[in-house]
Amino acid sequence: MTPAEVRARATGPTAGLAEGYAQANLIAVPADWAYDVLLFTQRNPQPCPVLDVTDAGSPRTVLAPGADLRTDLPRYRVWRDGELVEEPTDVKGHWRDDLVAFLIGCSFTFEAGLRRAGVPLRHVDQGRNVSMYVTDRQCRPAGRMRGPVVVSMRWVPTALVGTAREVTARMPAVHGAPVHVGDPSALGIADVGRPDFGDPVTPEPGDVPVFWACGVTPQAALMASGPPFAITHAPGHMFVTDVPDSAYRI
Amino acid sequence: MTPAEVRARATGPTAGLAEGYAQANLIAVPADWAYDVLLFTQRNPQPCPVLDVTDAGSPRTVLAPGADLRTDLPRYRVWRDGELVEEPTDVKGHWRDDLVAFLIGCSFTFEAGLRRAGVPLRHVDQGRNVSMYVTDRQCRPAGRMRGPVVVSMRWVPTALVGTAREVTARMPAVHGAPVHVGDPSALGIADVGRPDFGDPVTPEPGDVPVFWACGVTPQAALMASGPPFAITHAPGHMFVTDVPDSAYRI
Repeated sequence: MTPAEVRARATGPTAGLAEGYAQANLIAVPADWAYDVLLFTQRNPQPCPVLDVTDAGSPRTVLAPGADLRTDLPRYRVWRDGELVEEPTDVKGHWRDDLVAFLIGCSFTFEAGLRRAGVPLRHVDQGRNVSMYVTDRQCRPAGRMRGPVVVSMRWVPTALVGTAREVTARMPAVHGAPVHVGDPSALGIADVGRPDFGDPVTPEPGDVPVFWACGVTPQAALMASGPPFAITHAPGHMFVTDVPDSAYRI
Repeated sequence: MTPAEVRARATGPTAGLAEGYAQANLIAVPADWAYDVLLFTQRNPQPCPVLDVTDAGSPRTVLAPGADLRTDLPRYRVWRDGELVEEPTDVKGHWRDDLVAFLIGCSFTFEAGLRRAGVPLRHVDQGRNVSMYVTDRQCRPAGRMRGPVVVSMRWVPTALVGTAREVTARMPAVHGAPVHVGDPSALGIADVGRPDFGDPVTPEPGDVPVFWACGVTPQAALMASGPPFAITHAPGHMFVTDVPDSAYRI
């Protein structure tokens, strides 16, 4: 499927779809909160690498000029005062003229490169959403925005961890190199079999867990910080852009 | 000299000083303009890679915890309504409680790496400030902020242009790879012997001009956009941080 086809048709998680194109996390907040969110992303570039910021009220982005941010993600989350209130498949009825949308790099973007380098993608092969966890590491706060770092986890054969690191380190705009390899308790994760977002994924013998900073981090910050209103993507249900992943490779 | 010694003692351009430590451009604006400036930097990451943003009124930065942004640059520029009004050596008397300071990556940071790779630094060897030029390329606007891209230029022996590209591409937080090599007129530069900022630098036989995006770009945007008040560094007179340049190498 092309990016436009995924935007029009996908109903589930987008890992493995429109392979070779960058995918993005969405967080839209009222203009009154936009500076705090933008500063939060600047101060936490590994979990929150910004690919685009819209003008207030506009559902358009330079990352896909024909797309509509209100309808073209498979699933959204609507937040009031830091509480998740709804998970609709479009947000036309929720959109506001003062909303500023942030599109944040997604680790799905480096998955095509991982596969090309011979690193298997267990979650894609198993037809599951990637596993995501809230860690005990705190982001650097910015104004009213604060919260923990969220990570995604992929099972990687021990012999290929170096390769996975090399491939992803060259793509800092989509989270870059792993933040941790191995023992999940070092990140305060009690049980990798019970992710906070997404699905559990089954390892193969010899796999180790590899953790990358995750663009769900702003959603954890919404919960911690409680802006009056926000719209985000549902975890794993990303905005697929028209930008080739190579544009974010150094 | 250590970074702290440069901050305490330097009176001129900082190229070649405290080699191996990152240097930064400064732009401080009233909080009312901070969102526009931050969005401008996000939309123009090559000329405006942000290394830190202070809290309003604070002259402290995580890039050098002991430093004072009001006194520790060799020379400043004070702007009113987009006009340069003063070039003092400290700005204690100009500082305001609502100022937000942006520290933006500087290409001086990759110069140690260039030298280690065998690329000569003509401006340092000639004891001059680097040459900087306003180009005919426009930045992507953000709110009230707009303006042209400014570039720095270094003369590089033809055989070493590839090396210079490789060394700098790995440091996107300090402007990354060159934006142009060769004919200055492709950037709308009429005469490389007459830079808009800094000094003219004399080439050696076989040198070609290599252009990098420059952190003076926000100053050109101040001129074009006219916020009521701003403080910046004087071109070439940078804030020397305590952060090793290797922290910005991928």
